[in-house]
Amino acid sequence: MAFDAIETPFGKSDRIIGGAATYIALSASNFVKPIKQISVVGGDFPQEELDHLTSLGVELEGVQIKKDEKSFFWAGRYHMDMNERDTLDTQLNVLANFTPVVPDSYQEDAEFVMLGNLVPAVQMSVLNQMKKKPKLVVMDTMNFWMETALADLEEVLKKVDVLLVNDSEARQLSGQYSLVKAAKTIMSMGPKYLVVKKGEHGALLFHEDKVFVAPALPLEEVFDPTGAGDTFAGGFIGHLAKTKDISFNNMKTAIIVGSAMASFCVEKFGTTRMKEISQADIQGRIQQFVDLVNFDINII
Amino acid sequence: MAFDAIETPFGKSDRIIGGAATYIALSASNFVKPIKQISVVGGDFPQEELDHLTSLGVELEGVQIKKDEKSFFWAGRYHMDMNERDTLDTQLNVLANFTPVVPDSYQEDAEFVMLGNLVPAVQMSVLNQMKKKPKLVVMDTMNFWMETALADLEEVLKKVDVLLVNDSEARQLSGQYSLVKAAKTIMSMGPKYLVVKKGEHGALLFHEDKVFVAPALPLEEVFDPTGAGDTFAGGFIGHLAKTKDISFNNMKTAIIVGSAMASFCVEKFGTTRMKEISQADIQGRIQQFVDLVNFDINII
Repeated sequence: MAFDAIETPFGKSDRIIGGAATYIALSASNFVKPIKQISVVGGDFPQEELDHLTSLGVELEGVQIKKDEKSFFWAGRYHMDMNERDTLDTQLNVLANFTPVVPDSYQEDAEFVMLGNLVPAVQMSVLNQMKKKPKLVVMDTMNFWMETALADLEEVLKKVDVLLVNDSEARQLSGQYSLVKAAKTIMSMGPKYLVVKKGEHGALLFHEDKVFVAPALPLEEVFDPTGAGDTFAGGFIGHLAKTKDISFNNMKTAIIVGSAMASFCVEKFGTTRMKEISQADIQGRIQQFVDLVNFDINII
Repeated sequence: MAFDAIETPFGKSDRIIGGAATYIALSASNFVKPIKQISVVGGDFPQEELDHLTSLGVELEGVQIKKDEKSFFWAGRYHMDMNERDTLDTQLNVLANFTPVVPDSYQEDAEFVMLGNLVPAVQMSVLNQMKKKPKLVVMDTMNFWMETALADLEEVLKKVDVLLVNDSEARQLSGQYSLVKAAKTIMSMGPKYLVVKKGEHGALLFHEDKVFVAPALPLEEVFDPTGAGDTFAGGFIGHLAKTKDISFNNMKTAIIVGSAMASFCVEKFGTTRMKEISQADIQGRIQQFVDLVNFDINII
């Protein structure tokens, strides 16, 4: 839960609400309640944003508020190819010394755990505090931790069921260019499932020898991709937690749900679009994904 | 119909058979016969390659053989990212002065015309020789003609039903970064359908306000992408010519057929794999595409 300042070819935002946990919760709350949030913010984090999350069924007992400190801040710039971005500024602030605490009240039905992208040691600390082994642990990470904390990352990977990374990160982590080979290598490191996010090119789901390909919705404009990966993650685990079905078949559906949620996120700056959408919007968008890939198989 | 010399991260070929028309015919001949080929080769083009095409139902009356000249030759090098390649050598040879002639025997049932990637003026000459308007004209082109013969290219586009290009070419031709916007612009230039080939990321089909996304099959290794686009085109028009159905719905199936054929092409150097595959192989591969994108839509 943080602040972002974003520049894209279509415009520029002031300091706006962002952060992986914010996007994940906004997205997942469309599918399952309560969501038991763990994060840290400074005294500068707006109370109305916290109240909004509460109204969506997001419990905040695990969110530490450090009144005399500042929230994490990131500023970045995107170009026409939104798969790449430049970081203009990073201020760790409260994240510099974040020690997550999993409240007792979270332990009861925390069957589905989503570890947002953060220092692997912090992700591990959350898992170590779980008194019961979760039904499913999904983890996001990034190239930065592969370069600066690989040993810690490898330890967390051993405890994770589903890893979400983008295509260049899958290649970097595995040392394999072919994504099929990369998936085999990564699945030998711990995760039973690998989701490879490819932005405008969709996403791949690997499990054992199986693979599933989900498209991205072709959009007139990707206005701001910030948070799209986290929104995808929120839709993915939200659907799984709602249905309590962790079969490969249901994971495929979860990938489509995540892709649909991400396709909303990029339509406006920051979290704007995620705060507008209704259940009917979501259903309509998922139907668009059905139409997007549906073809007649009686070809002979 | 030409010679290629290819280097990839996985190996290096001698001078081998290639050329857009060769790949298109090899691919399409799995779906429809006869194929009435128009091309030009030198005296160096092996008779057994011509005989092989004949045995597949490819008529060669429209293939000029210039005994004292040499066939077109291209040498290129691919890197790990096979969406990019370096041209090492181009020898136009017989293509320098190619004047295509459409034989009378071709006129009767030439309902489906595939214009392989070549000088737009040559493509136009073929269309101008058709005595009856074809049911469907499909055209491939490339960035080189956008830079050196744009006016001619724009003239041919007015007479074309389906344009096949890759994503960077669609952006270049339209001046639009968004592929949705690029498709609208290109469809205003003549083609009623636009197919955007994205290599390992699959393909998009645009028509009016509709869009279809086809995946590429995730492969352990893309051994040699040479001819993949032409093989795709051959499968695409081959399926349409076989079924004689040019509805959007059947074009979607044709995209999947083309994608399946292209997925074979890249498995070995040059045309090697295309000469091995059986109807059973093709059916099995198309089923893999069904499995690749199929998901349960009862998500609520």
